[in-house]
Amino acid sequence: MDTYSIKVAYNGAPFCGFAKQPGLPTVQGEIESALALLFRRDVETVCAGRTDSGVHARGQIVSFDIAPDEFRGRSFHTLCKSMNALTADGISVVSWDRRNQGFSARFDAKHREYRYFFSVEETTPIFTEPFSWHTGELDIDSMQKASRYLLGEKDFKSFCMAISAKDRPTCRNVMEISFYESVIMEERTAVMKIIGNAFLHSMVRAIAGTLVTVGKGRRSPEWVRDVLAARNRSAAGETAPAKGLVFWDVAY
Amino acid sequence: MDTYSIKVAYNGAPFCGFAKQPGLPTVQGEIESALALLFRRDVETVCAGRTDSGVHARGQIVSFDIAPDEFRGRSFHTLCKSMNALTADGISVVSWDRRNQGFSARFDAKHREYRYFFSVEETTPIFTEPFSWHTGELDIDSMQKASRYLLGEKDFKSFCMAISAKDRPTCRNVMEISFYESVIMEERTAVMKIIGNAFLHSMVRAIAGTLVTVGKGRRSPEWVRDVLAARNRSAAGETAPAKGLVFWDVAY
Repeated sequence: MDTYSIKVAYNGAPFCGFAKQPGLPTVQGEIESALALLFRRDVETVCAGRTDSGVHARGQIVSFDIAPDEFRGRSFHTLCKSMNALTADGISVVSWDRRNQGFSARFDAKHREYRYFFSVEETTPIFTEPFSWHTGELDIDSMQKASRYLLGEKDFKSFCMAISAKDRPTCRNVMEISFYESVIMEERTAVMKIIGNAFLHSMVRAIAGTLVTVGKGRRSPEWVRDVLAARNRSAAGETAPAKGLVFWDVAY
Repeated sequence: MDTYSIKVAYNGAPFCGFAKQPGLPTVQGEIESALALLFRRDVETVCAGRTDSGVHARGQIVSFDIAPDEFRGRSFHTLCKSMNALTADGISVVSWDRRNQGFSARFDAKHREYRYFFSVEETTPIFTEPFSWHTGELDIDSMQKASRYLLGEKDFKSFCMAISAKDRPTCRNVMEISFYESVIMEERTAVMKIIGNAFLHSMVRAIAGTLVTVGKGRRSPEWVRDVLAARNRSAAGETAPAKGLVFWDVAY
C-alpha cells in the first residue's frame, strides 16, 4: 500500500463537521463514500484537523492508503475530477498527492493555520455573510496587543471546551497571531491569522471571541493574560461563531 | 412631500427578483413592507434597476416620497437600522439620503454599473460559488478585444430577451466594458465591469455569455460584431447565470 493525500476545500454550512457520523452529512462521510466508489472498497481516511460543524476549509489535508494496482491507470487529475463529481456540493478536492509510506495527515502535521473573518462594517454584510462574524468596528491594535499573551508554548485550558479538556493535556504552541484588513466585494473584513502546532477543541473560536471582547473595548489587552492564567473556560470570552472560521493550511 | 433614496445591497438568491410580485419574496416587497411599518401607510418605491431573480446588488438605489412630519424625529441612521431589522436576511440598507423633490431613482440615473464574476479556477469555487459563474480558465484578452464592438450607442437587440424586445427601442449606450482579476478568499475570479446609460432585459448576462464563448476560444472576437449586427437574440451566446451578476452602482 502507498500513501496519498488530498487537499480539500469546503463550505462548512451544509455539513455536521468533518468527522463522519452515521446518518449525518459530514465532509469525511462524503469523501469516504466517493473513495469507496472509486476503489470498490472501504478506504479509511485521516485528516489534519477535525473541523466542527459549520467551520469551513481552504486547505484541509486528508490521507489514506491505496495499492498501486487499484489506480487502474487513472491519473491524480482524473481522480480529483471524479471525487468532485461524487461528493456533495460545497466540497472541492483541489489536489491529489503522493506521500511517503505511512504518512499521516494528522500526526505528521508540523503546524496548522486557521483564519477567522470578522465583518467590521456597520450593516450586515451580504457577500461575506456566510463566512464571517458580523462584529462591527473593532480596535485591531488592541486585539493585536492582547494576542501577544497567547504566543508560545502555553496552557490553553481557558480556551478549550470544558468537556474536551477533561484529563487531557491542554498545552499548545501558538507561533503567530496576526491581523490584516481585507476588502471582499467592497465589504470590509478584519482577518485573524493564527498558526500553531495544534489546537484544542474550539480553541481558535474561543481566542477569536476573547480578542473581540478586547477589540470592542469591553476589556483591556492585559485581561487576556489573566484569562490564560485562570485555566478555566468561563474566564475567557464567548466562542466565536463557526461560520467565521476557515481551516486555511497545514505544514508538514 | 420630500423625496428620499436608500442604497440597498442584497443577495439575490432568496428573492424572486427586485420587482414586487404578490405572494412571492422580492426585494421591493421586503422594502415596501418595512417602509409601511415605519410610516404607517403604503409607500410607493422606484428603483434604479429591476434586477432579475437571483441577481445580486451592492448599490441598488430606491426612491420614495415622505412628508417631513412623518419622520417623527427619527434620524436617517435610525431609519436604516429599523429597515435592516424589518427586512429579510440578505437585504442590507446601507444609507438613507435626501434628494431633490421629484427625484426618481429610475429616470434620473445617468448611468448604471454592473459587475459579472467569473470563477476561473479549475475546481468548483467554495467561497465565491454563490456569486460567480464557474467557467474555468478564460482568455481575458480576447474577451476584452471582443467587447470593443459593444461600446457606444448601439442596437442591442441581439442581447435582449426576445419577448422584452418586441416593439420596444433596443438602443443603449455602453460606455465601458473592462476586465480585472480579483482573488477572493484565494479563489481566482475574472470580473467584467460594464457601464451603460441603461440596460435591456438580461442584456448584461447575454453579453457575459457571449464574451465567454469568445473567452473559451469557441469564437473569435470579431464574431461579436456579427452577433450585434444580426439583431437577433439567437445569434448571441447563452445567457450567463443570474448568480454571477451584481448591480454595482448608479450615477445621478
